[in-house]
Amino acid sequence: MDLKILCTGGTFDKVYYDALSDYQIGEPQVEWILQQAGVNFSYEIESILKKDSLEITDQDREYIVAKVKAQSCKKIVITHGTDTMVETAQALKSVTDKTVVLVGAMQPARFKDSDATYNVGFATSAASVLSSGVYIAMNGQLFNADEVKKNRDAGRFENK
Amino acid sequence: MDLKILCTGGTFDKVYYDALSDYQIGEPQVEWILQQAGVNFSYEIESILKKDSLEITDQDREYIVAKVKAQSCKKIVITHGTDTMVETAQALKSVTDKTVVLVGAMQPARFKDSDATYNVGFATSAASVLSSGVYIAMNGQLFNADEVKKNRDAGRFENK
Amino acid sequence: MDLKILCTGGTFDKVYYDALSDYQIGEPQVEWILQQAGVNFSYEIESILKKDSLEITDQDREYIVAKVKAQSCKKIVITHGTDTMVETAQALKSVTDKTVVLVGAMQPARFKDSDATYNVGFATSAASVLSSGVYIAMNGQLFNADEVKKNRDAGRFENK
Amino acid sequence: MDLKILCTGGTFDKVYYDALSDYQIGEPQVEWILQQAGVNFSYEIESILKKDSLEITDQDREYIVAKVKAQSCKKIVITHGTDTMVETAQALKSVTDKTVVLVGAMQPARFKDSDATYNVGFATSAASVLSSGVYIAMNGQLFNADEVKKNRDAGRFENK
Repeated sequence: MDLKILCTGGTFDKVYYDALSDYQIGEPQVEWILQQAGVNFSYEIESILKKDSLEITDQDREYIVAKVKAQSCKKIVITHGTDTMVETAQALKSVTDKTVVLVGAMQPARFKDSDATYNVGFATSAASVLSSGVYIAMNGQLFNADEVKKNRDAGRFENK
Repeated sequence: MDLKILCTGGTFDKVYYDALSDYQIGEPQVEWILQQAGVNFSYEIESILKKDSLEITDQDREYIVAKVKAQSCKKIVITHGTDTMVETAQALKSVTDKTVVLVGAMQPARFKDSDATYNVGFATSAASVLSSGVYIAMNGQLFNADEVKKNRDAGRFENK
Repeated sequence: MDLKILCTGGTFDKVYYDALSDYQIGEPQVEWILQQAGVNFSYEIESILKKDSLEITDQDREYIVAKVKAQSCKKIVITHGTDTMVETAQALKSVTDKTVVLVGAMQPARFKDSDATYNVGFATSAASVLSSGVYIAMNGQLFNADEVKKNRDAGRFENK
Repeated sequence: MDLKILCTGGTFDKVYYDALSDYQIGEPQVEWILQQAGVNFSYEIESILKKDSLEITDQDREYIVAKVKAQSCKKIVITHGTDTMVETAQALKSVTDKTVVLVGAMQPARFKDSDATYNVGFATSAASVLSSGVYIAMNGQLFNADEVKKNRDAGRFENK
């Protein structure tokens, strides 16, 4: 297998439930994105958490780290809410033998104008090319966990 | 002017605000829908309320009715949340000299798979053809205010 | 059955075949449009021709008329290329016991910005409401066969 | 400037002209893709050719190579038709001081289900990460010019 994709929820996977008049985390949207793209590498998608990243606890983060460490695949993309993506990237710094790329979206993947599809293209490319390490792939840029912050007002990730 | 469109909010106009991690009623989406469709009739869009229809009060409804009565245009489409569309249609029964068509969406218009564009096509056609009266246009069907209910579980409007 | 839909091809159904480096008429796109819209009426879709409307012959038109006359359903929508839609509408004037609405698209339904979905909403609404006769539903307007022409430069249908 | 994007046409940029009943190469679609993605790197887009890649001549290819060599920016993405993308990549082998990534699409970017947006994400990521060389980025994979062929029947790029 070339790539393992772990899905944790976030804006990326938010869908609308009319019966609740509300948005909720749905099934991993990365699946149709890769199908539509006609990718020709082997991958596996696993949904390990369905949370808005503001609700991800320390315990959840330990679980994510354990999940990453347990993979035999050396190339991993994690879809994740943007608000605490940096915290999860920092928690993952103990992973040293794999290429781990975190990616999210500012607009849900189901939206016509979402950044999700581009971001998945960007992140999967980075995962295939980069050597071991933990990276954040957002807004067409790659960041290390220690040098990035989300600029909530501008709606993008920036160097600190 | 051939058609006046009054927008009240609802799922139809829900957009995602990353800075709030939440969906909110945004600007009327009906505008780009009509532009994309290349319609060749004259129309005016007016946003008169921006509410989830569960939050529409009796006072709001009186305001909607007054707004409809104040129009000189005899053909009116109202975009409205689906949960209390029937109540607003009933409140509008005192309007007897205009064709009023209420329309909404089960999925926000900004979604790739939304029913909004089809519904607007259906509602504007009904408004142009039908004689005076108040109608609900949902799921490819036309209903009178007294004979329709929303089936929340099935996610559609049906005859009572 | 509430509605019969006869598909004849046209821009509406054009898809891209990479292996040919060209666009061709594909399967009827009206199917996913109605599914996405969540319509709650009964319908049947039948592909009777797959042609750019510039290639539709007199014989083809006779076949379309015969097909319409053979339907037991009294409400019929025909998807059709725009360039000779008027000619086909005129050929259908001998149909007097059914409501027949011709509809097409200026941009293929598979395009992000197509007018196809709105047009199908408009046409199906017109078919359900209008009494017997042959109509063209384009650009958010309804025309009789004798009073309409396609303005190719403006990219829309207009009264003669 | 972080990235220069040279557009040569191909399926990627095919749009539909109703007045011609035909698809033609339109303006570079990569522009709205990068805007929608909210990328936060600096880039410039230049349309240098508008051709189906089957029509690209040896002279055109010399022009593309000269254009690439003339850039001061060291990171270059080229959008290109898929049928002769490999030939252009081979012609570019004399470029040794820049990272050049060729990318295209099996379905026009204007299509709802196009692979274009994912591919642009993939290619721009590869351009930013990879050292000097000429690469083809298609189907979620990176290829060197000498080791790849387009499998027209399968609709994808593969190792020879």
